[in-house]
Amino acid sequence: MSVLPIHFNDIAEACHRLKDIAHHTPVMTSVTADRMTGTKLFFKCENLQRVGAFKFRGAYNAIAQFSSAQLKTGVVAFSSGNHAQATALAARMLGTKSVILMPSDAPQIKVAATKGYGGEVVFYNRYTDDREAIGMRIAQEHSMTLIPSYNHPHVIAGQGTLAKEFFEDVGVLDVLLTPVGGGGLLSGCALAAKTLNPQCRVIGVEPETGNDGQQSFRSGKIVHIDTPATIADGAQTQQLGEMPFAIIREYVDDMLTVTDAEIIETMKFLAGRMKIIVEPTGCLAAAAVLARKINVSSKTVGIVLSGGNIDLLRFAALIQG
Amino acid sequence: MSVLPIHFNDIAEACHRLKDIAHHTPVMTSVTADRMTGTKLFFKCENLQRVGAFKFRGAYNAIAQFSSAQLKTGVVAFSSGNHAQATALAARMLGTKSVILMPSDAPQIKVAATKGYGGEVVFYNRYTDDREAIGMRIAQEHSMTLIPSYNHPHVIAGQGTLAKEFFEDVGVLDVLLTPVGGGGLLSGCALAAKTLNPQCRVIGVEPETGNDGQQSFRSGKIVHIDTPATIADGAQTQQLGEMPFAIIREYVDDMLTVTDAEIIETMKFLAGRMKIIVEPTGCLAAAAVLARKINVSSKTVGIVLSGGNIDLLRFAALIQG
Repeated sequence: MSVLPIHFNDIAEACHRLKDIAHHTPVMTSVTADRMTGTKLFFKCENLQRVGAFKFRGAYNAIAQFSSAQLKTGVVAFSSGNHAQATALAARMLGTKSVILMPSDAPQIKVAATKGYGGEVVFYNRYTDDREAIGMRIAQEHSMTLIPSYNHPHVIAGQGTLAKEFFEDVGVLDVLLTPVGGGGLLSGCALAAKTLNPQCRVIGVEPETGNDGQQSFRSGKIVHIDTPATIADGAQTQQLGEMPFAIIREYVDDMLTVTDAEIIETMKFLAGRMKIIVEPTGCLAAAAVLARKINVSSKTVGIVLSGGNIDLLRFAALIQG
Repeated sequence: MSVLPIHFNDIAEACHRLKDIAHHTPVMTSVTADRMTGTKLFFKCENLQRVGAFKFRGAYNAIAQFSSAQLKTGVVAFSSGNHAQATALAARMLGTKSVILMPSDAPQIKVAATKGYGGEVVFYNRYTDDREAIGMRIAQEHSMTLIPSYNHPHVIAGQGTLAKEFFEDVGVLDVLLTPVGGGGLLSGCALAAKTLNPQCRVIGVEPETGNDGQQSFRSGKIVHIDTPATIADGAQTQQLGEMPFAIIREYVDDMLTVTDAEIIETMKFLAGRMKIIVEPTGCLAAAAVLARKINVSSKTVGIVLSGGNIDLLRFAALIQG
């Protein structure tokens, strides 16, 4: 039996840190979706979280545990996605500075949002530079603390608060599904869910082209893949983090995949019927249920909609397709 | 002093009827919107209500008060918009039948949604037929009860539950703004708001081209206009209802207008920053604040986002514009 990087108590403590800081996001239901699937579905709307994604939970929980020396020098993160904005906002709220490494071709809207939250953006060339090496160098030179986007116990504990909140709001769930990129969300939520209801089936969902997590889950060791081609940009990670994987092996029941076409159909359903904008990666878990990748009839099913950050013109183009 | 069609107690009773029936819709906030306006804004998300609009509150509250004889014969409504779907769903939930009169050129998606909720749809020609006459004839021939979309005390009381819920969730507001079509939403909310906080300024917002309510408010008598050209289809009413107007004269502080361009900018902001889909009419109140039609600095401001029913392709086209 492996030693796990966090325990449920870390999630409970993270809940206290995030209380009245993170949004207590709403849980939505849809009679139409229930009828389509023959079950009772609950959608946890982390697209309505601060910075538009669950990532705020983990970033804030990590920086909130900085020592006063760490707070004086600040935090470094590398991300072209939601962890960037989450780190910048959490740092500002906690009175410390943030340096965010972003690829020089990152969408202007994400760069602007990160700067808007007070982050100092440093660009790197994604084809020639090693962002980890640059991040470590900046952190060392300025005595700053690097917070990775998923392979960190405080980040995982922060993401786990989502599942605890979800269970407290809707009661015990029979099944819980989350999207999977590096595994921070799935692992934190799996630990929380299995602690609150050991009978709950916890399932991660990936894009079909980027099923490194499924391969790792089945083989029992972390599988590394080339950057997958998928519209789910938050799940274009090449492998699970070691810490998330240790928890996933222990607590996750299955890993499923969905196609980009299924993601787009789900995005249309969530927009058209439920009036919410969910980014492609945020649709993964819902897509697995709506596309019947799993039999969930007569069960209470929790679905995590993990984020809503998508360029509006891109969103418009996808729902027109 | 005129006799008002309803009193606050009718709203309180409607709250009991709607408890665990209507969604208790979330209230959202936005740091960005607060910074843009120098105030603290609260958005009541009725686009996330059942059938995608506040109309469910009024329709259900009306049908829930039917006698057993009325329930046996059913309800008639005429609407090309959200009242149609609201009446169909509320009727089904209360075990009675509904006949919904819709124009023969109504969007297919709205016809399908109304039928999906169990409504029997009867078409009329909007250029040659008198829908009120047809509705009355159907109601009389089949001893059914006609429920108008705003000029009815039980409908107004139902819509007022929105403001009561809003105040209970966020505390006392200094200003409350709602969209205005026939006046059911504004009047119900004004009565609730002024009862809970007599100092609250209550403001209705219309499209600039369809400012019949503003004209009526200023002149003290109901002004009738030609059907206005505006993207806010729910505010294309030609005049306020008599019952709403009696309450509006008593309790509303001002009526503002916004342009279609301001509505579209607001729709983009709500989608891009807050990740929610709000139909043009649903954006009216938010547009007045974001376009600075009112000075709200250093106040707590409640904004009703009244609905989210817009065809996805139309939505995509508007946010691309």
